[in-house]
Amino acid sequence: MPRYQLDKWTDLYANRASLLRSSAIRDLLSVTEREDIISLAGGNPYTKDFKMNKIVEATTETMLSHGNAALQYGSSEGQVGLKKHIRALMATENIMVDGEDFIVTGGSQQGLDILGKVFIEPGDVVLMEAPSYLGALSAFAGYEPRIVSIPLDEHGLVVSELEERLEELAAEGIKPKFLYTVPNFHNPAGVTMSLERRHRVIELSQAHQLLLIEDNPYGRLRFEGDDLPSLRELDENVVYLSTFSKILSPGIRLGWLAAPHPILEKIIFAKQAADLCSPTFTQRIVDEFFKQNDLEDYIAQLVQTYRRRRDAMLESLDEFFPDEAEWTRPEGGFFLWVKLPEFIDTTEMLADAISQKVAFIPGRAFFADGRGANFMRLAFCFPNEEEIHEGIRRLSDVVKDQITLYHSVAGNLKLKSE
Amino acid sequence: MPRYQLDKWTDLYANRASLLRSSAIRDLLSVTEREDIISLAGGNPYTKDFKMNKIVEATTETMLSHGNAALQYGSSEGQVGLKKHIRALMATENIMVDGEDFIVTGGSQQGLDILGKVFIEPGDVVLMEAPSYLGALSAFAGYEPRIVSIPLDEHGLVVSELEERLEELAAEGIKPKFLYTVPNFHNPAGVTMSLERRHRVIELSQAHQLLLIEDNPYGRLRFEGDDLPSLRELDENVVYLSTFSKILSPGIRLGWLAAPHPILEKIIFAKQAADLCSPTFTQRIVDEFFKQNDLEDYIAQLVQTYRRRRDAMLESLDEFFPDEAEWTRPEGGFFLWVKLPEFIDTTEMLADAISQKVAFIPGRAFFADGRGANFMRLAFCFPNEEEIHEGIRRLSDVVKDQITLYHSVAGNLKLKSE
Repeated sequence: MPRYQLDKWTDLYANRASLLRSSAIRDLLSVTEREDIISLAGGNPYTKDFKMNKIVEATTETMLSHGNAALQYGSSEGQVGLKKHIRALMATENIMVDGEDFIVTGGSQQGLDILGKVFIEPGDVVLMEAPSYLGALSAFAGYEPRIVSIPLDEHGLVVSELEERLEELAAEGIKPKFLYTVPNFHNPAGVTMSLERRHRVIELSQAHQLLLIEDNPYGRLRFEGDDLPSLRELDENVVYLSTFSKILSPGIRLGWLAAPHPILEKIIFAKQAADLCSPTFTQRIVDEFFKQNDLEDYIAQLVQTYRRRRDAMLESLDEFFPDEAEWTRPEGGFFLWVKLPEFIDTTEMLADAISQKVAFIPGRAFFADGRGANFMRLAFCFPNEEEIHEGIRRLSDVVKDQITLYHSVAGNLKLKSE
Repeated sequence: MPRYQLDKWTDLYANRASLLRSSAIRDLLSVTEREDIISLAGGNPYTKDFKMNKIVEATTETMLSHGNAALQYGSSEGQVGLKKHIRALMATENIMVDGEDFIVTGGSQQGLDILGKVFIEPGDVVLMEAPSYLGALSAFAGYEPRIVSIPLDEHGLVVSELEERLEELAAEGIKPKFLYTVPNFHNPAGVTMSLERRHRVIELSQAHQLLLIEDNPYGRLRFEGDDLPSLRELDENVVYLSTFSKILSPGIRLGWLAAPHPILEKIIFAKQAADLCSPTFTQRIVDEFFKQNDLEDYIAQLVQTYRRRRDAMLESLDEFFPDEAEWTRPEGGFFLWVKLPEFIDTTEMLADAISQKVAFIPGRAFFADGRGANFMRLAFCFPNEEEIHEGIRRLSDVVKDQITLYHSVAGNLKLKSE
């Protein structure tokens, strides 16, 4: 078949098809997989310290003891054994649920897509942080919402802005479908919502009957400071998502979604329509893995690893980056967020960076409205400390070149105009 | 949390959420898992002859040689190694594609959901067979189509009816989004589209610019007769879906979808939004499995098994079922379709059947418009020959009771009215 084809089906697509776009992160994957490039782009967890033979042992036991069940269809809600381990994991974050209160999903991403499907009609208002998680933006976009952005600062969601937007919308007679938030170690911003703001968000949600969707993939990866209660702990009406992607493996594609029962019922129907069930095979192997192994040791080891990498990135930024740049100092997670002078467009700068063999994600990818041109997300999860040091050194040269170029052009312009 | 909760979120749901319903098959699973019930209901493939240690060997090699890659995110299009095996498998059905022409999906079901998302706006006309695959009905329902049904007979889709509907719709200025068809060993009807009709469907699709979606999960499971060309073989504009669910395992949840490039591009964006990628872990293990094992031997063995079971079901039906019943004689696949007298409602009869410890799927589940009350689907894939014989014997008693009851009531009514 010819590689490039005229699209003779354009009159058949649904409107939403034109809103589904390739994510910047996915497009970059092909480049950042080149070995000579230091990637500060993708949020790939570090898995090299993982003992692969533990998966082999779990698979052996699963196939020899429960092989037939592992090869069959399973329930749409998720495999019972795996759900017990998920309950225990949620309990470590003070979220007490029983097996009926949540389902297993194909990573958090499937949970987000299903939430979009269950709640969003074209034109519906959805509240999101700005910047926000790219995967949530792309999952919701397919259902054609009107996204109203709430800014972040170093203490997370700016609650006073949330309150203003809610009042404006109420005055217009508009009821937003939900607020989507990543309170812990935000992707991409690296900030964490303060305790006081968590309580304020809950108060506002109760006052305005605002449904909250809390996405918490990084909660267990705290490097310093005290754990804060999740929104779901503070109010059981919150819809809560998390995943094994960051603490075990994204390649197994298993996450979970907890919601009040009436909502969860709709979500289960949508899950059935989406893929009948998550792979029984993988769920049974992970169930067996947790019977044989304690995840806590591995999480503790990951926290050490990521803390060292965050430190290496912060130190390298202090060492190399020019005074004109600012960045967040995350207490956990995978990412930090860099603000460059407003005359820099990081989307354009990316090509220079890749020619210098370093990659990042341009800030504009994380906004629904084209803002963020002078921001970038840096991930410290995958490269080691030396690679981070060298990557930040290379990237600083790219940034400094942009600043020098600007001042030289601006100087010339100034000379001309004088 | 209380088990039963008032739904205070009713004003938040999208319209489509009310159209997503639990499928009859899924609801039945809980009952049919009871060991004392002979289930002729679910389409669970027979996997007990599968050598479980082959999966263990493939997992061992995968984790020890490619463990890191298997635990990471992968491409949305699918893992390159697995795609080579899928190409080879499609080639056994004379479908020649390269790796760019298809993607890996979470079973066929995810492909169907994504097709709904890419093509269907509320009110759009979609053409489907009547009866049709339950999973397709539920996947498309969430996108709120108007389903126009085309009947089936023993030679598959009744093409003259398709032609009439297409002309009527064209006269109304309505362009249907696509025709969804299962040409081989239809689920639930068990019939196969004749060669002549395949050519006619292609001609009609070309004359009316009608997009064809061909779902072929059972194509390799032919017990007798000659293979017929797939619609995709006859015209490369056809969108084609298949799956490992019936020939290897549904628990691995891996299928594939081939489409012309412009359509496939939209599908890839929707796949990214749906779950980023299918599990790299499972894809790599199945890739390794096919490097170590030839699937053809296993398929040949499955064909023997299912042929014996179909024969057992046909013989048992001949032996036990009353003259008032008719059924299809499938040349392959998992299912046959039984027509009972019009006064029988199989949805109501199901409770009696379960009390007699046998289960089936009532016909109404396979129609978009509430028809099919006197039909039922019988699956011969999972129980063995003795179980099938005993199951059909039990079911025949239930059917005969219904007929006796009707005639006795009708006789009394007749007496009364005389």
